[in-house]
Amino acid sequence: MLEELKKVVYEANMLLPKYGLVTFTWGNVSQIDKETGYFAIKPSGVDYDKLTPDDMVIMDLEGNKIEGKYNPSSDTPTHIELYKAFPNIGGIVHTHSSWATSWAQAGRGIPCYGTTHADYMYGEIPCVRCLTKEEIDGAYEQNTGLLIAEYFKNNDYEAVPAVLCKNHGPFTWGKDGHEAVHNAVVLEEVAKMAARCETINPQVKPAPQELQDKHYYRKHGANAYYGQK
Amino acid sequence: MLEELKKVVYEANMLLPKYGLVTFTWGNVSQIDKETGYFAIKPSGVDYDKLTPDDMVIMDLEGNKIEGKYNPSSDTPTHIELYKAFPNIGGIVHTHSSWATSWAQAGRGIPCYGTTHADYMYGEIPCVRCLTKEEIDGAYEQNTGLLIAEYFKNNDYEAVPAVLCKNHGPFTWGKDGHEAVHNAVVLEEVAKMAARCETINPQVKPAPQELQDKHYYRKHGANAYYGQK
Amino acid sequence: MLEELKKVVYEANMLLPKYGLVTFTWGNVSQIDKETGYFAIKPSGVDYDKLTPDDMVIMDLEGNKIEGKYNPSSDTPTHIELYKAFPNIGGIVHTHSSWATSWAQAGRGIPCYGTTHADYMYGEIPCVRCLTKEEIDGAYEQNTGLLIAEYFKNNDYEAVPAVLCKNHGPFTWGKDGHEAVHNAVVLEEVAKMAARCETINPQVKPAPQELQDKHYYRKHGANAYYGQK
Amino acid sequence: MLEELKKVVYEANMLLPKYGLVTFTWGNVSQIDKETGYFAIKPSGVDYDKLTPDDMVIMDLEGNKIEGKYNPSSDTPTHIELYKAFPNIGGIVHTHSSWATSWAQAGRGIPCYGTTHADYMYGEIPCVRCLTKEEIDGAYEQNTGLLIAEYFKNNDYEAVPAVLCKNHGPFTWGKDGHEAVHNAVVLEEVAKMAARCETINPQVKPAPQELQDKHYYRKHGANAYYGQK
Repeated sequence: MLEELKKVVYEANMLLPKYGLVTFTWGNVSQIDKETGYFAIKPSGVDYDKLTPDDMVIMDLEGNKIEGKYNPSSDTPTHIELYKAFPNIGGIVHTHSSWATSWAQAGRGIPCYGTTHADYMYGEIPCVRCLTKEEIDGAYEQNTGLLIAEYFKNNDYEAVPAVLCKNHGPFTWGKDGHEAVHNAVVLEEVAKMAARCETINPQVKPAPQELQDKHYYRKHGANAYYGQK
Repeated sequence: MLEELKKVVYEANMLLPKYGLVTFTWGNVSQIDKETGYFAIKPSGVDYDKLTPDDMVIMDLEGNKIEGKYNPSSDTPTHIELYKAFPNIGGIVHTHSSWATSWAQAGRGIPCYGTTHADYMYGEIPCVRCLTKEEIDGAYEQNTGLLIAEYFKNNDYEAVPAVLCKNHGPFTWGKDGHEAVHNAVVLEEVAKMAARCETINPQVKPAPQELQDKHYYRKHGANAYYGQK
Repeated sequence: MLEELKKVVYEANMLLPKYGLVTFTWGNVSQIDKETGYFAIKPSGVDYDKLTPDDMVIMDLEGNKIEGKYNPSSDTPTHIELYKAFPNIGGIVHTHSSWATSWAQAGRGIPCYGTTHADYMYGEIPCVRCLTKEEIDGAYEQNTGLLIAEYFKNNDYEAVPAVLCKNHGPFTWGKDGHEAVHNAVVLEEVAKMAARCETINPQVKPAPQELQDKHYYRKHGANAYYGQK
Repeated sequence: MLEELKKVVYEANMLLPKYGLVTFTWGNVSQIDKETGYFAIKPSGVDYDKLTPDDMVIMDLEGNKIEGKYNPSSDTPTHIELYKAFPNIGGIVHTHSSWATSWAQAGRGIPCYGTTHADYMYGEIPCVRCLTKEEIDGAYEQNTGLLIAEYFKNNDYEAVPAVLCKNHGPFTWGKDGHEAVHNAVVLEEVAKMAARCETINPQVKPAPQELQDKHYYRKHGANAYYGQK
């Protein structure tokens, strides 16, 4: 079942090594089928160069495995909480991509220093706190998802489709798995340039709000005029 | 019409991913035909791996589309102002290349620290100010071009064929699209080495004026002796 | 003899250039056959692109060459001391990989700043002191091994399968040559992100102990649940 | 004439882009034939991907072109002075490789921080001063060679086969063109790790003298035991 979903999720997963976002098995992509409420996700700890579409695991939002010969990614409970909290998304990515993870390890959100960032993400990319000992010792991966969801109760998850988890790494999302991967690439590039720009000018300030507005709304919303819309 | 122009502009655009200067669709090259006053430019938001020569858009300097099935790059009004202000150029490039953009985000011009820079660009590569709210809310892309043109009223656009736009990224130009791409590669390399050299020696000073003169005039002007001239 | 061992050690050695861990001949992998007590190791100073399985040198733990037309790696006495001191390992890697070597040259151990590190290595990756003049002028390579062994008398070599030698570079190990290479890749990635994260936040602190515990024990020991176990 | 020399010099030149040491035409290799006293060198400003063995230019040590359809590299007078001053070398390389050039622009020699450096170069890699206005306005390229030669009157050019020219870039040399390229690769790697190691530990000190001695003499001189000697 859901052969087409498994295929596109496989393809989105294979983009992670293509774009240099993963070492070994350090990343995963999922995508949800809105009709059935099932989602497909990468199996846990399987090498990218051995992966096939058929290896994708089909799960429901209660965490039951519907189909698949492998265990799903150990981050599956995080994906579930994000699908529950963000009704308009269709795909999720987790990586340990080098620059984004360096910011996460540093415990800092990524300020919006320019239009590359503003074209895709509206304002600072947040870094949510480390989980408490209780949260870690309990349902760790689920609690990671709940913490992200909590932050976005008061923030627009569609305007900022990315988050850093302190001492851990990034999650990104989008309308499907491919868009979530696209946002993971953007995040890595933005994270790299933000770090370098702080080295070049330690007193650097975020881009003016009107420039952030201009670039974000040039590509998003009713008045967008970028591309072939 | 202008089939040859579309072909060379296509080829110049394809050099951007080849040289690692663009992620996704974040860049564009144009080239002008001096006889007709028309220029060809990359369409907006079209993936490089799907691009064909036929996708190039032909525009005039009043901003009218002369030919093409796509919308032109959203940066087209910037290109137009540069063609109007810089009569001796034939090609323009815009990218978000990583190191040059980091300097632009940092809001700093790139000092001439050595002969790699001096071989191509005479003196500091300027970083022009961010646009005002009025300029951004108005004809943003045109105003970007006007601001660059304003700076070069009192500076030699042929001696420094590159500029950084604060919080945004670089533009470069040259006698045609290929030379503009060449200068974009040089800019990125120079931006990288300038940042690293400031880390290695925070007190570093620009190269002596006589060395800058020597290298620039070794390759440019009546007494050039570099290459096969 | 030991044709299979020579083949896998050859393959593990060839992974070093594949993963970008070595320049020229600056690295070596060995793997031990527990039954005979012999190990295979890369010959000294032979280019990777000319290497064949047959070029691997078979040694015993007393340092006698059992088979092979070449001299073994000059680091062979270090490998021998590690095999003697670490009974549960089957493979060893030495490289001059760029980021790990930069930490070694800096004389600092790598703090555990996040889960990428904690997934593989439990706590700080140590940097052992430089050898004394006597140790250097004597049996230098053997003394390097003895110094590492000394450190791990009071530390768990299975929980931290990597070490930096001050002013020199890293050694990693694992259950076989391939796992030792895997750990060398992890070390390099972790070293890179730790350096960048200190630049992004000079006041950064190691990840909380409970997070380090969680990630390490999620993948190791009786209660591991990562992967397909 | 000297067909074999042109072929090996061509091959050595083609290694520069292979190892990522040059952008466009920013580098050149030469090699001398001791019998005739002629040397072959890359032509000036010719693209690497159009280069053929036949394009190499044959020069004598008085600067006369003996054979070749192109102008020789504009750095030819520097090569000549080095061949005159360093009787035991057979090949010379000049590049603008990124890390080495960053040190040159910073005006600092590269301290010996570890064994990677010590394996090839004995002690700090010097950065010679910028030329004076008189030296620049006169026979600039020749004066560059004379300045390097001057430095090595009191220093061992065989023990340190590399130099940085302030605000310019590196030269390396060796027994032939290939060894000079080899040393250019080592220099770039050492320059990269030295810069990173100073960022990781701003108080870092050079490696102890006895370690530098050990590694250098392990590979060089009568008692060398590295490799297959």
